[in-house]
Amino acid sequence: MSPRKKEQQKESEKKKKTASDKTARETKKKKPDATQKKSKPKERKAEIQPKVRVIPLGGIGEVGKNMTLVEYGDDIIAIDCGLGFPEDDMPGIDLVIPDFSYLEANREKFRGVVLTHGHEDHIGAIPYLLRSFNVPVWGTPLTVGIIRNKLKEHHLPFSPQLVTVHAGDKLKIGTFDVEFIHVNHSIPDACAIAVGTPCGTILHSGDFKVDVSPIEGDMIDLTRIGELGRRGIKLLLCESTNAERHGFTPSERSVGGVLENVFAANTGKRVVVATFSSNVHRVMQIISISARFGRKVAITGRSMQTVIAAAIELGYMTPPPETIIDVEDAKAFPPGRVTLITTGSQGEPMSALYRMTFTDHSPVTLGPSDVVVFSSSAIPGNEKLISRIINELSRNGIRVIYDSVYSGVHASGHACSEEIKMMIRLASPKYYVPIHGEYRHLSANREIASFVGIPDDRIITADTGSVIEFDKKTCALAGTVPSGRTLIDGLGVGDVGKAVLRDRRHLSEDGIVIVFASVDLEARLILTPPEVISKGFIYLPDAEELINETKNTAANELAEAIKGYGKHPALETVKERVRRAVLRLLIAKTGRNPMVIPLITDL
Amino acid sequence: MSPRKKEQQKESEKKKKTASDKTARETKKKKPDATQKKSKPKERKAEIQPKVRVIPLGGIGEVGKNMTLVEYGDDIIAIDCGLGFPEDDMPGIDLVIPDFSYLEANREKFRGVVLTHGHEDHIGAIPYLLRSFNVPVWGTPLTVGIIRNKLKEHHLPFSPQLVTVHAGDKLKIGTFDVEFIHVNHSIPDACAIAVGTPCGTILHSGDFKVDVSPIEGDMIDLTRIGELGRRGIKLLLCESTNAERHGFTPSERSVGGVLENVFAANTGKRVVVATFSSNVHRVMQIISISARFGRKVAITGRSMQTVIAAAIELGYMTPPPETIIDVEDAKAFPPGRVTLITTGSQGEPMSALYRMTFTDHSPVTLGPSDVVVFSSSAIPGNEKLISRIINELSRNGIRVIYDSVYSGVHASGHACSEEIKMMIRLASPKYYVPIHGEYRHLSANREIASFVGIPDDRIITADTGSVIEFDKKTCALAGTVPSGRTLIDGLGVGDVGKAVLRDRRHLSEDGIVIVFASVDLEARLILTPPEVISKGFIYLPDAEELINETKNTAANELAEAIKGYGKHPALETVKERVRRAVLRLLIAKTGRNPMVIPLITDL
Repeated sequence: MSPRKKEQQKESEKKKKTASDKTARETKKKKPDATQKKSKPKERKAEIQPKVRVIPLGGIGEVGKNMTLVEYGDDIIAIDCGLGFPEDDMPGIDLVIPDFSYLEANREKFRGVVLTHGHEDHIGAIPYLLRSFNVPVWGTPLTVGIIRNKLKEHHLPFSPQLVTVHAGDKLKIGTFDVEFIHVNHSIPDACAIAVGTPCGTILHSGDFKVDVSPIEGDMIDLTRIGELGRRGIKLLLCESTNAERHGFTPSERSVGGVLENVFAANTGKRVVVATFSSNVHRVMQIISISARFGRKVAITGRSMQTVIAAAIELGYMTPPPETIIDVEDAKAFPPGRVTLITTGSQGEPMSALYRMTFTDHSPVTLGPSDVVVFSSSAIPGNEKLISRIINELSRNGIRVIYDSVYSGVHASGHACSEEIKMMIRLASPKYYVPIHGEYRHLSANREIASFVGIPDDRIITADTGSVIEFDKKTCALAGTVPSGRTLIDGLGVGDVGKAVLRDRRHLSEDGIVIVFASVDLEARLILTPPEVISKGFIYLPDAEELINETKNTAANELAEAIKGYGKHPALETVKERVRRAVLRLLIAKTGRNPMVIPLITDL
Repeated sequence: MSPRKKEQQKESEKKKKTASDKTARETKKKKPDATQKKSKPKERKAEIQPKVRVIPLGGIGEVGKNMTLVEYGDDIIAIDCGLGFPEDDMPGIDLVIPDFSYLEANREKFRGVVLTHGHEDHIGAIPYLLRSFNVPVWGTPLTVGIIRNKLKEHHLPFSPQLVTVHAGDKLKIGTFDVEFIHVNHSIPDACAIAVGTPCGTILHSGDFKVDVSPIEGDMIDLTRIGELGRRGIKLLLCESTNAERHGFTPSERSVGGVLENVFAANTGKRVVVATFSSNVHRVMQIISISARFGRKVAITGRSMQTVIAAAIELGYMTPPPETIIDVEDAKAFPPGRVTLITTGSQGEPMSALYRMTFTDHSPVTLGPSDVVVFSSSAIPGNEKLISRIINELSRNGIRVIYDSVYSGVHASGHACSEEIKMMIRLASPKYYVPIHGEYRHLSANREIASFVGIPDDRIITADTGSVIEFDKKTCALAGTVPSGRTLIDGLGVGDVGKAVLRDRRHLSEDGIVIVFASVDLEARLILTPPEVISKGFIYLPDAEELINETKNTAANELAEAIKGYGKHPALETVKERVRRAVLRLLIAKTGRNPMVIPLITDL
């Protein structure tokens, strides 16, 4: 087939795709019928079968930024499209998203995104993806609801194709048979995703735990995973977040019992509970317990209010009537009659809890008649932020309850070692890829898989950008594609890179010293002698002597430099000489290495 | 007594003091005799008794920088003089030491420093203190040995008065009876310190644990603490580091058993153990186990080598003959015959472990025939640094063993709740002050004291700089003294303060944009039109358009500014207008808030 014809065929396929997406969107509350699955003719039968390529674009060797591509022939789908958070060495960066350049280069193959659940590290980069790719996005109702909310802040030039599906749904996307499988997690409506390909089935675990007593809905669909396992799973991609932890993750329900004790022991106090806004079941438990203790519940923090409103609207939460009241109205009730549910469990500056702890301009003021409960754990890297709040509350004599002093006040949403083993045994995959975690977690996951009998040479250690390629017989790493981090700073997407970050780190370590002067190079004259200003280097009022020395050094060097050359001393050379002389002096005098900028103007 | 006479009396007392210090120094290996204790005449008997003042200058509301003053009449002694580490919001700062200004203001009263043990957070600020105060420093042999080593890098203009004492020793320092009491901790030779004053006895716990089976030496001297308790302790200052942890800290000896299992399971591999260099007993256990398994032991990392050499010399460590070999010689042995003990357990960049993990220029290269053991825990704030190493090793297929995957491979040196309770019950103090910890730890310690029956109004919540004042009857907070943090950056001590740090944080977030131009204000002319350079703001090669816009905005505003005023537009006003106009543009275009510096020269 000529390239031209291929192009046309792709175009026509794309049109079919769009049409079928619309159907899916319109029938979002119905199960798709079986015929839809087989509607696409197998046009490529006569061709040589290409291999399936599985490409993680994030989530390997890092926490967050989860995104995995599945590619076969002319089709690519993405599973999840999450954001990551900046590392300590990325000052000023707000967010990190996957590098989409492989998708840019294969734009015409890209059929859309299927989502496992509504956490930021799985959906947060969707708004940025949609800026460049108007593709359909499939997710369960809560997941789609959260994205719809997010997209209000981003102004897309088109109406995005958000398609609601349910656990158990099966879709045909391009050549792939995609199935959503119910799992337990710290947000409702979470799924694992099975992708049927011409070369075998891929199972992507999403984020999961095995909760035998969930607050609502069923236990993870172990039966379906087992069925797929019996039919044969080629490749299991399994999350690693808690792979270092032995045993089983406690059930979400167990947290309710512990919180009940906290409420029972603090009947005269207002109970302020900080938790993850997306943990709808946790929030529901707090509301139910409060109602049983005769308390009204007020919600603070924008994301908490948004998620609870969405959860109530979508039917994920049914608080007893008249339990939820406005924060302002809560002031009329005695402390023992009020519960406050708040954001800020990660110590986020400017979260509701942060504001009520540190600032005067919060609608809520905390005092000794409050007990503050962190029904949460620290996302790695947030320990110090959380400590700041606990410390300030403790200092002010406010009782704080958190997992390291009060066991069971939180339960994780991620599988520990035994649950991962169960997933592997049920899926009994031919090949295994640990995903979602730093290398230490991936490595612990690898040991778990090895323990339950996956041969070491079938456990694939991938990296972000690795291509895992399989056909009906083999499966192996096969090179890499462009991948990495795109940094978001303010409105900028990708305009801050390594060089800018290096400068920021340098500036933050020792500050900047600017030496400015003007000269007439032609006439070899200094017109205005060097002045020095500095920022972030030294406390200037006490450093007069050093600044004078710096000016003198700069003046001497400048005089030398404009004299010392042949007919035309180059301005760049003059600048560099002044920079070096000043830096030498400052290192010797202060032991610091500031950025020195020589601004010498040739008039 | 006239002020003049008082002054003279102080002078004469000081001379006596110095003389008695010398005695103590010269007799350092002997127990001081009983007469020395009573040698000082009670000259002040006829006067009205002043109150005793206990003043923490650090270690309250923070981890590290431990230092507490005890003051009575004309005498002040300090217990410990430690350093702290910079917080995340102190970029570029190397170290933090206590603010000594209260001592400066009371220089003539200052009789010296008694040290509990040789950890940096208890002795690290001694070299900086000695720069300003040539006072005696008393400590046990290992503590003094470590300081002696540290002082080699600092060039003091005098020979410091380092006085060696032993647990059980009693000294008279000024009016105070000072007694060193043996405790268990993660460094040998650690002490609690009792200070007898005319108004009652103070017990300072130092850092301690109750180890019923220490590797060498006795269990903590519970008997002596109990004796002092029976006689009556007025004030117990007790450490809080592990107050959040329930139960008892495991014995150091238990770690040996666990490490033995690690060695038994890895007989064919080189075992690389990272631990705290000052944990002499841990290092000794690793050496002994290695010898039993027929391994040679090589030591890497400067601080590890220094401490082990000192420990062997002072008799704290007696490795089996010919066990310790040079790192270079270790290469001749097969992996299963070698143990490597290394620094870097906190992930410190440029530590030996860091270098062998990340760099090519290390004498040791790690590979699959190594197993790396972290026999340590993370000091809060170091989690990410440690993770970086674990991740990199995991990524390279090297097995890593650390406390969260292999329980018991480390034991803390600090008392958990039950040990703190034991300390309180034995000392049965009248008043109680939690020290050494963030407010969350102090708060947990307060709850422990309350649990064992100290009335809430006798548990004193102090702060750094608080004055705890007591006489024979009462004890209460009585104001504050100047206190805080002195920041060390390079060679500078205290020349970086809040304003400089604020600038550094600002620079690190969004970088700097410098607009420079020259004008003739008199003639209202722009001589050189605005140029723009930036650092840490945006990737310049891709931002040409924005830079041009910035230049234009600056040029327009500059033109307006020099025209728009009356006869003499002030240069400062012109600069400020340009700064604002440029900043407005940049915020609108990028969503960032860089530091904008207008350098406008009036020629």
